Amino acid sequence: MGVNEAIATLRTLLGERCVRSKSDLELHGRSESHFPLAPPDAVTYPESTEEVAQIVQTCARHRVPVIGWGTGTSLEGQAQAFQGGICVDFSRMDRIVALNADDMDVRVQPGLTREALNNALRATGLFFPVDPGANASLGGMASTRASGTTTVRYGTMRDNVMGLEVVTSEGRIIRTGTRARKSASGYDLTGLFVGAEGTLGLITELTLRLHGQPEAISAAVCAFDTVSGAVSAVMDTIQMGLPMARIELMDVASVRAVNAYSGMHLPEKPHLLLEFHGSDSGVAECSETFGEIAKMHGGSGFEQATKSEDRTALWTMRHNAYYAILAARPGARAIVTDICVPISKLAQAIDETARDLEASGVQGPILGHVGDGNFHAILLIDPESSAEADAAMAASGRMVERALGLGGTATGEHGIGVGKLAYMRAEHGDAWAVMGAVKTALDPLGIMNPGKLVPPRN
Amino acid sequence: MGVNEAIATLRTLLGERCVRSKSDLELHGRSESHFPLAPPDAVTYPESTEEVAQIVQTCARHRVPVIGWGTGTSLEGQAQAFQGGICVDFSRMDRIVALNADDMDVRVQPGLTREALNNALRATGLFFPVDPGANASLGGMASTRASGTTTVRYGTMRDNVMGLEVVTSEGRIIRTGTRARKSASGYDLTGLFVGAEGTLGLITELTLRLHGQPEAISAAVCAFDTVSGAVSAVMDTIQMGLPMARIELMDVASVRAVNAYSGMHLPEKPHLLLEFHGSDSGVAECSETFGEIAKMHGGSGFEQATKSEDRTALWTMRHNAYYAILAARPGARAIVTDICVPISKLAQAIDETARDLEASGVQGPILGHVGDGNFHAILLIDPESSAEADAAMAASGRMVERALGLGGTATGEHGIGVGKLAYMRAEHGDAWAVMGAVKTALDPLGIMNPGKLVPPRN
Repeated sequence: MGVNEAIATLRTLLGERCVRSKSDLELHGRSESHFPLAPPDAVTYPESTEEVAQIVQTCARHRVPVIGWGTGTSLEGQAQAFQGGICVDFSRMDRIVALNADDMDVRVQPGLTREALNNALRATGLFFPVDPGANASLGGMASTRASGTTTVRYGTMRDNVMGLEVVTSEGRIIRTGTRARKSASGYDLTGLFVGAEGTLGLITELTLRLHGQPEAISAAVCAFDTVSGAVSAVMDTIQMGLPMARIELMDVASVRAVNAYSGMHLPEKPHLLLEFHGSDSGVAECSETFGEIAKMHGGSGFEQATKSEDRTALWTMRHNAYYAILAARPGARAIVTDICVPISKLAQAIDETARDLEASGVQGPILGHVGDGNFHAILLIDPESSAEADAAMAASGRMVERALGLGGTATGEHGIGVGKLAYMRAEHGDAWAVMGAVKTALDPLGIMNPGKLVPPRN
Repeated sequence: MGVNEAIATLRTLLGERCVRSKSDLELHGRSESHFPLAPPDAVTYPESTEEVAQIVQTCARHRVPVIGWGTGTSLEGQAQAFQGGICVDFSRMDRIVALNADDMDVRVQPGLTREALNNALRATGLFFPVDPGANASLGGMASTRASGTTTVRYGTMRDNVMGLEVVTSEGRIIRTGTRARKSASGYDLTGLFVGAEGTLGLITELTLRLHGQPEAISAAVCAFDTVSGAVSAVMDTIQMGLPMARIELMDVASVRAVNAYSGMHLPEKPHLLLEFHGSDSGVAECSETFGEIAKMHGGSGFEQATKSEDRTALWTMRHNAYYAILAARPGARAIVTDICVPISKLAQAIDETARDLEASGVQGPILGHVGDGNFHAILLIDPESSAEADAAMAASGRMVERALGLGGTATGEHGIGVGKLAYMRAEHGDAWAVMGAVKTALDPLGIMNPGKLVPPRN
């Protein structure tokens, strides 16, 4: 591989924005979950789409891997350089290009984070709803097809990306989608690049759908005696079509962890965390109906937080739950599971998972976006103990088998990367080979984030 | 081409369900719009996915085109056999395979029509919302990424297809998607096949998202003095985020045509046709707010129809508007335009279109799904007059240019087929070549609905 030649060219092109310092390489080789360090050979900081195109052209010429980098918050090793190569860090491409308030859309660069976007939108009456917890970059969120706490109401990145600018594997710049609300014009390339994890090209601009800030917002917590009581309440709520904006589950172990980490004082019981968006009367109607459903399933202490600072405290606690759970076992690393099942199978999936983890002695608090049927067990392992890692990986595999058996998916929102690669054949069968054919067509040299998502080439 | 050998094999396979009668060939070679007859060499009527796979395998072996057929209601020649070949008519694959009321999804065969599905769902409290007007097959609707009157609220086929079974160009059977509400597992192949117009494979089963029948439904008509008054009311309504279930425009010429065809007595003015879905109080709140907006823009005669038979009459009239407009000029054929623009550009797009048609002497009533920014001018031509056809085609081309210039698309919902092929390069630039690369990867022999949607191969 001509990685040294490629880096020499990139140095000429980018000057000090092509970096090889050990600290920078290691920073871009790490992961938030259990994967080992896998640094790239160099990190580049482009400032324009044209520079990204030149970087990819250079890498194509020298057959060198190209890996995109947003904020490094992906959980399946998507942004790690397991085969070395050039990391493209989008942090200097973080501008809002054009806000169209009348059409409720915005064009942004991929390095902009979702919180920075929402801060900039504050005065407009609009907001961008997709909320995976981490303050991720919007390019990264599109690439992993992120979703999160608000998806039950506002959809995933798939539903909220209207169009893209993409640098292809040959370094050509293309545009997908339009600013019209719908189109029947040709293959849905926007949808193809969303969730492709940088394996088909690099996203250099996004047109995002915005939503009106609701007139009224109310958040709430509700305790249940059992997880299955909480889940039954969720199933009834969704099946009734109540327009929940958020409906999140935390089991007892998760509640203990967030109490300790965020200084909360929730009763040590399973909880649902909720949010209602709408008109004043709509929010009141919805929360009243939810209260009745909750009571039927043993819910107690249903408490509303209409003040903005109380809501912020609640969702900050929720967003930090992953770190809270990690902190519950000092020194531990996490294997994060992410299954998603049809809502009617949710109680069964959670119940069987909890019993399996207990039986196999794996510590794994459960929490998730239960309104979508999506939940996580955060499996805590001692990084020095291969026995613990093996037990957790086996339990994680059984969770996936369970999800697939119930008509669900191995990953609701974290994506494939390398962490879920082993389950692709089981989930997709021959359709995985079709993904491989698409990959080969769009990246014939195999330089775009190699080793991720698609089958290995023969 | 070994079309005769292929047909001999198919005769053995399907017996009398492989047909070559002139009447059947012509029936499957026609179009509802202005394209000339283009019959296939044979029509097949498979009864199972396995038979579809065998048909495609046979066609692949003999390099013979394969064209899917639902109800023949597509408007851009998508189902016509311009290069001959084997038509696969899905009318015998029209079953509901599995209804999951608890998860609000249903698995269906592609030949099932949307009305047949909704009739079957009537007692369940659920419905399938996508409504392109024609009683199209669900496989055809997915293949053209159909939308229509309810898309402003419930989305397009892209938003309502959760998963597919597809027979690939080699005759392999694959499954895409799951029954989970979301997934981050690999490329969105479901989204890739939806809107691919049978050029990448044949859809043999669909998993569709259902919605709860609203507690209350109210429809309404509202007259305006000018089209621009009506469009301004639409823009305000959408920008305020009012949850309209339907919001449709008809200009004066369209109103005259439907009055004559459907025996209605609407005032000869531009009209909006509306529908509100929700709780009793939600519907009341929404229609009251709309009434205020309409009044500000000169709306009059805002009249509610809460009775089911009145609503049916209203939407039947709207669905027949295409035939009403055709009937307004006996013997005429239609060139149907279908542009979609950002909502803030809608008034400009409609106004410039109307003035252009008037200036160029083309008869073209305007109507459409204006809540999405999508509208049609139905250009009526004497099929014997090439001058009229030329003038209409030129006006149609200017509409597309106008839409693209305003950030929109050549087709909101009718798709590409052959009718909009000439605009693909202008709309997609180099991304059209990427579509071609995907096509070549998934259909290397070029047998799947050839001549449609993608660039010609070199």
